[in-house]
This record gives sequence, structure tokens and C-alpha cells, in this order.
Amino acid sequence: MAKDVKPSPFAPARLPDMPVIDGVRFATAAAGIKYQGRTDLLVAVLDEGTTVGGVLTRSKTRSASVEWCAQNLPHGKARMLVVNSGNANAFTGLKGRESVEMTGKFAAIAADCSPREIYQSSTGVIGEPLDAGKFAPLLKGLANSARADAWHEAAKAIMTTDTYPKLATRTAKLGSTEVTISGFAKGAGMIAPDLATMLVYMFTDAPVAAPVLQALVARSAATTFNCITIDSDTSTSDTVLAFATGRAAMRGAPAIGTLDAPAAQAFGAALHDLMHELALMVVKDGEGLTKFVTIHVAGAESDHAAKVIGMAIANSPLVKTAIAGEDPNWGRVVAAVGKAGEAADRDRLAISFGPHAVARDGERVPDYSEPPVARYMKGREIEIRVDVGVGTGRATVWTCDLTHDYISINADYRS
Amino acid sequence: MAKDVKPSPFAPARLPDMPVIDGVRFATAAAGIKYQGRTDLLVAVLDEGTTVGGVLTRSKTRSASVEWCAQNLPHGKARMLVVNSGNANAFTGLKGRESVEMTGKFAAIAADCSPREIYQSSTGVIGEPLDAGKFAPLLKGLANSARADAWHEAAKAIMTTDTYPKLATRTAKLGSTEVTISGFAKGAGMIAPDLATMLVYMFTDAPVAAPVLQALVARSAATTFNCITIDSDTSTSDTVLAFATGRAAMRGAPAIGTLDAPAAQAFGAALHDLMHELALMVVKDGEGLTKFVTIHVAGAESDHAAKVIGMAIANSPLVKTAIAGEDPNWGRVVAAVGKAGEAADRDRLAISFGPHAVARDGERVPDYSEPPVARYMKGREIEIRVDVGVGTGRATVWTCDLTHDYISINADYRS
Repeated sequence: MAKDVKPSPFAPARLPDMPVIDGVRFATAAAGIKYQGRTDLLVAVLDEGTTVGGVLTRSKTRSASVEWCAQNLPHGKARMLVVNSGNANAFTGLKGRESVEMTGKFAAIAADCSPREIYQSSTGVIGEPLDAGKFAPLLKGLANSARADAWHEAAKAIMTTDTYPKLATRTAKLGSTEVTISGFAKGAGMIAPDLATMLVYMFTDAPVAAPVLQALVARSAATTFNCITIDSDTSTSDTVLAFATGRAAMRGAPAIGTLDAPAAQAFGAALHDLMHELALMVVKDGEGLTKFVTIHVAGAESDHAAKVIGMAIANSPLVKTAIAGEDPNWGRVVAAVGKAGEAADRDRLAISFGPHAVARDGERVPDYSEPPVARYMKGREIEIRVDVGVGTGRATVWTCDLTHDYISINADYRS
Repeated sequence: MAKDVKPSPFAPARLPDMPVIDGVRFATAAAGIKYQGRTDLLVAVLDEGTTVGGVLTRSKTRSASVEWCAQNLPHGKARMLVVNSGNANAFTGLKGRESVEMTGKFAAIAADCSPREIYQSSTGVIGEPLDAGKFAPLLKGLANSARADAWHEAAKAIMTTDTYPKLATRTAKLGSTEVTISGFAKGAGMIAPDLATMLVYMFTDAPVAAPVLQALVARSAATTFNCITIDSDTSTSDTVLAFATGRAAMRGAPAIGTLDAPAAQAFGAALHDLMHELALMVVKDGEGLTKFVTIHVAGAESDHAAKVIGMAIANSPLVKTAIAGEDPNWGRVVAAVGKAGEAADRDRLAISFGPHAVARDGERVPDYSEPPVARYMKGREIEIRVDVGVGTGRATVWTCDLTHDYISINADYRS
């Protein structure tokens, strides 16, 4: 965490207790990738038989490690995850690919597996060659010392300038057997010279076939991680991965081999719930935020159109600064709806801030009174509801306000 | 101009001399639309025979006055322009349409013409009913008192929180006759509770047929007003109109009846030049700006793709805050290219800041030295060049930096 950065007002008082998940162990190290004496390396060791699914940034300039993961995901098997902070290994050309190859090779030796079963992420400075020689030789020792209870250390190791570690856990009943799904994320708290990279790793002992895990993660990402925005910028490294060791099968958990398997629904619901919580945690550590904002859009032509409109509102600097200023400025919401480009009926638009209707049928509500709405805007969590009056499409997106601290954090000269 | 707002560092030392244009007269008034004693009404009276062309906001929630103009443009004739500040008459439902109808009716009486020949714009508060009764009765008297030399007053009357009036003038030779094209704009300087509305009005004595004027304005808007961005927000009221009185025909100027008429090119070039200057003036009065930024994108799949990429860079809060911080942070430029969604070859990307190449072939230039680039970033005008390495499409877009003052201006509570 950079100097002078205030912790998020949403930082939890204490970290959640994280149960051990059979087949998952963590180790961390200070490899001196950018700074000395700072934990900057995470290894997760996964038992044989672990499946994997995930979603990756759609950036056209994605990093070499993201491309590595994209190549391996179709194989569906994982034995080790390696994450370094301090250097994103993005926009590093051929050297970047060599660094990823080297990490993959050393990790495969450490985990005694194929490079196809290695997953890796890098976060930090862009454009600086990453010297994998600094940490690849450590992987074997780390694999040997990994511990099943090191969740908090793991979540801390991938932080850059997040102001708090982000961990969450859920359980699901598969038949009569309880399984656990837990995960951690780093989010939008990275300072100079980079953009905010979101990394999310989830682990479960449930026996889930890779294609099912892939489908469930992708489906839930659409309404969780893909519905949050801090400042509209997309990282070259964003990565969401879920690993399933399958060890709960030994306790009687039924294998989830297809999306319509009886246990798929219970598992999918718990996974979705976990992804939802982690996604909101990422927003709640948005750079410089003072308020957390939920935007519900209804009445759109389709769910997709509703999401486009929601994101236009969530990414509008004028809406975000109004919220920072505790101003129930629905005119700026109207303008954001207009610029989204999706169908909206100006004369049927309705807007509420929390419980307060401010506009209906395309104009201010007749009995509008600002003082109660202004009081509502002083709260820390703000809900905006918009009905655009043309159909039944709906979506919810989450964002934060845009404050002086965002500017301070991001306009600081690189140090 | 609101209290506490610093004038733009790009405000000119003096306003340009504006020649009289035959057939165009202006009058202004303080009609008390929102504030007392502040000029808030502009009338431009146009001689019979005046043609008109223009482009209007694409917002799906555009205001009633924009819809009025959209209905009239196909008729191609104009006798009066009425612009009020203080109230945008946007999102005011049926009342908004009634207000526009009333203004149109009174203006038509004042100018002794059809309502189809009236153009109107409103800028200011959104969502408050506009009482056209405050100013419609003034139109007749204003029409009678209008003066041909009142350009500076006209440009000032449409300002809201612009920190300086924006005027420019050009001439063109049509055959052996010189014609004048002049205009003024208001831009992105509007404070609480609204968004920055851009209004641009241009006037010429050249004899230009309405369809030609329409085509020329639309063509040049694509590479001028549609290539600027302050904060990615689009107004419900943005309007660019050009009026041609045709009076220069009496001095021998040839009529421009088709796009391939000999004089169309000379006129179109001068019009483009004027629109370019006015567009840049709007950016140079961007809220809270300290730097003016030109972004050249080359090597894209098409010109359209280049513009999308340029706008993604120009609208990236991370790029804009880096520029405010005088940080040559090309990593953020790479990320913005990536998120634009258009084809780009990560391994052929090249980026320069001013004369300094910082990246080539997808990685930092081998001999990169930051001090000279950091010195360059201290300048007031910044150029960024990006080649995305896949084709021959190119575009230039203009923006400004994102500063603490932008937040202060826009997070201020409505007063």
C-alpha cells in the first residue's frame, strides 16, 4: 500500500476465518521483484486431479501470462498457480514470453507436472522486463513448504496497493456432503505507474469437471466481475480462475460432470455468491472512494442493453463526481442514459435514489422535495434505480464515486 | 462563470475582431431565466434566403429544443436563432415541448416567418420546467434592435461557466469574391447541476444551398467536434449549426449548389478550418484543465478504428491523471489501446510523447531515458502518437487532463 493512501472506509474490521480446503496449499515469499523485503510471490499447490475454469481480460494488449493461461485453460487441469506482484510482465515483447516460459518450466518441475497444468499471473509495473530468474528457482522450495492454512498470507501476497486483503468463503451441499468454495481477490488499488489489475482465485474441494467449472465461472462473471467498474479502465492482466481439487468426492460428494447434474445448481449458486462478494469487495476498495454505488437498470430492450446503460451511468465522471459531492443530480443520470446509445424512452424514464423517486414519466416527480434526497446522499452506500421505459431487460452494476483522492493517487508521479 | 473557477490557461489575451457578415444581426438580453441581471438570451436575426445545416447530439435523451431543430433541418431555411442559458429544458416532458412550441411561435412572429425557419437551443439546469413566457415576448423587440457588430456580446450570452468566450473567423475566395465564415461556441465549462453542453453557431455570407451546407458541416464535424472529449460525457443538448445568408452573391460570389461545385472546396476548407479552431477552443476550456492533449493514432484497421482507439486513450481517467501528474506513463496508453476493442498488434505497438519515442515493437525502446520525456510532460501542450501496427487507418483526437479542479467543479453541491 502506497504512502498517504487512506484505507477504504469499507475495509473490514477483521479478516474472515478461512477453512482449509483439501488439496490446496499456499506458500509466499519476498523475491525482491521490485522492492526488497516485500512479499511479492504466491504459489498455490494443487493436488493431482484438480480441474480449472476461468475468464481472462478481453484487452487486445493482454499480457504474456494471460496468454499463457488462455492456452492452458482448454486442457482443464491444474497443479500449480504462481502469482507475482511488482511487475506485470505486460508490454515486454519477446522477453515477456521468455519469462513466462521460464516460470512455467520451473513450476512444472516443482509440481512434477506438465507445463499445461501451470497457471500464472503478474501484476505491477507495465513495460519493464520481468526477470523470472529472481523467483523461478524458489518455486520448488515453496511447493515443499506450502501450508493449507495460509489463506490470509496468500491474499496479502497478491496485494499491490489494495488497502485491505479481500477474502470470502461459502459452502454448498452436494447430496448430503458439504463442500467449501473460498477465494481471494486483489483489485483496483494499484498506484503509479499502472492501472488497477483485478486478480481473483477461487478454490473448492468439490469434484467439478473442467467444462462445467468453466461454464459456471463464465456465467457468473457476466453478472459479477463484469458488472463492476471503478474508472472504466481495463487491465491487460485481469484474471479470474477457479480450481476444483475434487477431494470432497472421498467424503461422498457426487461428481458434477454436466451443467444439469443435480449438484451443479447448488454448487453454481454458492460459486456465484462467492464471486458476487469478491466483486463487491474489489469495488469497495476502489481508488479514493468514499461511497459504494449500486445501479439497477430496468425497462431496457434486453439485459445486455440494461448493462450497457448501467455501465454508462457507472462510468460517467459527472455522475461519479456528483455522488462524491452528495448531490442527487439526476440530470447527469439522464444524460448518461442518453449517451449509452441503447434504446430509452425519454418521456417514460423513471429515476430513484434509494427510496426516493426523483423522476417519473420523463420529468421530475410533481411532489419532489430535495432535502430528504440530499440526506440520503450523505450515506456511504448509494442505490440508483433507473427504468428506461422500453422493455423488460434489467441489470445491476456496481461502482464507486470519483474523488480528489483518485486524482491524487493517479496523478502522483512515478516513484 | 462560477465563483472560484480559475480561467483556463489557454484563455486568449484578447478576443478576435469579428467582421460584420451581411444578413446576420445579434441581440442579447437578461431575461432572468435562472439568475437576475445576467445576460441569458441570444437572438440571431437572419435575412430572408438564409440556408442552414447542422449536426445534433446523438443522445437518446436529447432535449425538446434539439428535437425542434432536428424537425426543421430538412427544410433547410432559417430566419432566427434563439438561445437561452440558465435552463436546458431537458427532461421536462410535455412542458418542455410546450415551451419550445411557444418560443417557436413568438420567434416566427418576431421574424415574420414560418416556425420551420426558427432554430433554438437551451443550456443550463436539467429537469426544471423552462418558462418560455419569461423571454418569448421579448423576441420581437430584440429582433428590432439587433446589430450586425454584436459578435462579442453574442458569444458571451451563451456562456454558462465557460471561462472565456470562444470566437473565430475565416475567409474563403469563391471565384474572385471573398466571403466570411465566423462562429462562436460555448463548451465544457458548465457547473452544477449539469453536464457540459457544447453549442456552436456559425454564420457566412456565402451562397450555399442547404443540402451542401448540411453535408459540409456533417463531414467536418466528424473530424473536429466529434473528435474532442473532455470527460466522455455527452450532453442532451449539443448542437452545431451553420447559417448561410447568401448575401455575398450580390458581390459576385458564385452559388454553391452541389458538393462538386468549384467553390465548394474553398468554402468547405474554410468551414473546416473554422470548426477545427472552435473545437479546439472548447477543449482548451475543459473543466479544470491544465494541459491540452493531442492524440494521433495510426496503423489501425480503419480510420474509424483509429478514432475509437484515440477516444479510448483520451477518455481513460488513468491516462488523463497521468498527464495531469506530468508522468509519461505509456503503460496506461497501452492499456487504453487494449480496452478499445479494435484490432491492435501488441508486439508492433509504438508510442511517442512529443518527439520522444518511448515504445516500439511492443516494448520499451532500448535506449529509453526518462528525464527528457519527463521534461516534455511539463509543457502545456502534449502530443501522444500511437501506432497500433495492423493497418493504415488514422485519426487525431483532442482532450485535456483530469485534475483536482475537475473534481472540485463537478462535486460541488448544487447551489
